[in-house]
Amino acid sequence: MRLRGRKGARELIERQTDLVVLNPQHWKGRWAERFGNDRPIHVELGMGKGKFISEMSVLHPDINFIGIDMYDELIRRASEKARAAAGREDGGAPENLVLALLNVERIEEAFAEGEIERIYLNFSDPWPKKRHAKRRLTHPAFVRKYVRLLNERGEIHFKTDSLTFFEFSLNSFADLGLTMRNITMDLYRDGQPPGNVMTEYEMKFCEKGQPICRVEVVVGQTALREHADRLKHLWD
Amino acid sequence: MRLRGRKGARELIERQTDLVVLNPQHWKGRWAERFGNDRPIHVELGMGKGKFISEMSVLHPDINFIGIDMYDELIRRASEKARAAAGREDGGAPENLVLALLNVERIEEAFAEGEIERIYLNFSDPWPKKRHAKRRLTHPAFVRKYVRLLNERGEIHFKTDSLTFFEFSLNSFADLGLTMRNITMDLYRDGQPPGNVMTEYEMKFCEKGQPICRVEVVVGQTALREHADRLKHLWD
Repeated sequence: MRLRGRKGARELIERQTDLVVLNPQHWKGRWAERFGNDRPIHVELGMGKGKFISEMSVLHPDINFIGIDMYDELIRRASEKARAAAGREDGGAPENLVLALLNVERIEEAFAEGEIERIYLNFSDPWPKKRHAKRRLTHPAFVRKYVRLLNERGEIHFKTDSLTFFEFSLNSFADLGLTMRNITMDLYRDGQPPGNVMTEYEMKFCEKGQPICRVEVVVGQTALREHADRLKHLWD
Repeated sequence: MRLRGRKGARELIERQTDLVVLNPQHWKGRWAERFGNDRPIHVELGMGKGKFISEMSVLHPDINFIGIDMYDELIRRASEKARAAAGREDGGAPENLVLALLNVERIEEAFAEGEIERIYLNFSDPWPKKRHAKRRLTHPAFVRKYVRLLNERGEIHFKTDSLTFFEFSLNSFADLGLTMRNITMDLYRDGQPPGNVMTEYEMKFCEKGQPICRVEVVVGQTALREHADRLKHLWD
């Protein structure tokens, strides 16, 4: 995303210690302490302007959300969205939400093994050129990092509007031997799916009637066992 | 496929005992005997007019091919194609090819467990209505039959032009816990893939520039082990 943000974004986000974390490395292995409880942690990698993570944090008060992006200006915009979504008179942010400044390349510096329960990848940059494949956030080198950080109920939920990026990602998950679920190449075929929260980008894209791809990857051992139990009947 | 074949198709195929098998149940567990050797057996379920299976049998003399369809008239047309593909002066058919009359619903009547090494599903009827889902040849109820019939090197290779049928099939394979490989939603994106043989239907479709979806499913234990070995490096 091209950023023509106003100057001073850093200054504006530095002040927001209730919502913004500029050095997430500090909380590695101690996020429960930061949130003041040990609820499951859901992380969005590349939250952009923050509509998705803000709405999710309001819809699911029983989950702790961390929105990650690498640009000060995006953190600033997301912080405005988060406070608006909370709808509090004092301008306070949702208590179960943190916006963290981090390059996803360094995700393992900010989280301990098994500290995350769910990773959301929403409309990540498809990096369409082959020589940039390693930058795609569903490249096996990234996914194997996620797998280490996910807990026993861990899942990855991925949405994209790029069919070629989706194809690349399905192969990436399949080649790593991961279990996929609810694969769709047209998320809105039968209308709005229950519980679905749209990103800014997704709304624009959907208005044009273009299809969205989505897949869930089941990673954690407990999640895998429950998933297999639900599907056991297919073999009967 | 709508069939306005000429009458007497049954009579015409009955005579072709060198190529056509009208009661494949007779050879269950004994196909090696029918072929006179124990080479791997590749089966196409729904061969239509038989271009694919005929060309494959000529290209791969080390494999025994069985093309299956449920209509006399298609067997008849395929038999002509097969003899033409063999290109023999005496009009003989490829010796490694059998065309068998069978409804795929009853596939287990014609093959013993582990008797097949590869199953090809090319442009099967997508049965787009939800209430017909059980008729789709990639429905879990069909796929689990295939799994039982495949040997330790067993694979399923599936091609379709229907993105929704492809989506259904990916979920079917995933829900059965099967391992997928080389998933593509545009087989001809980078030109003609090496070794690819097109069906009649596929040629027409490709001329219009419409994308073809394809996936390989790795089923047999030996095939799975070798596949995992090739991908081990992704975790290093």
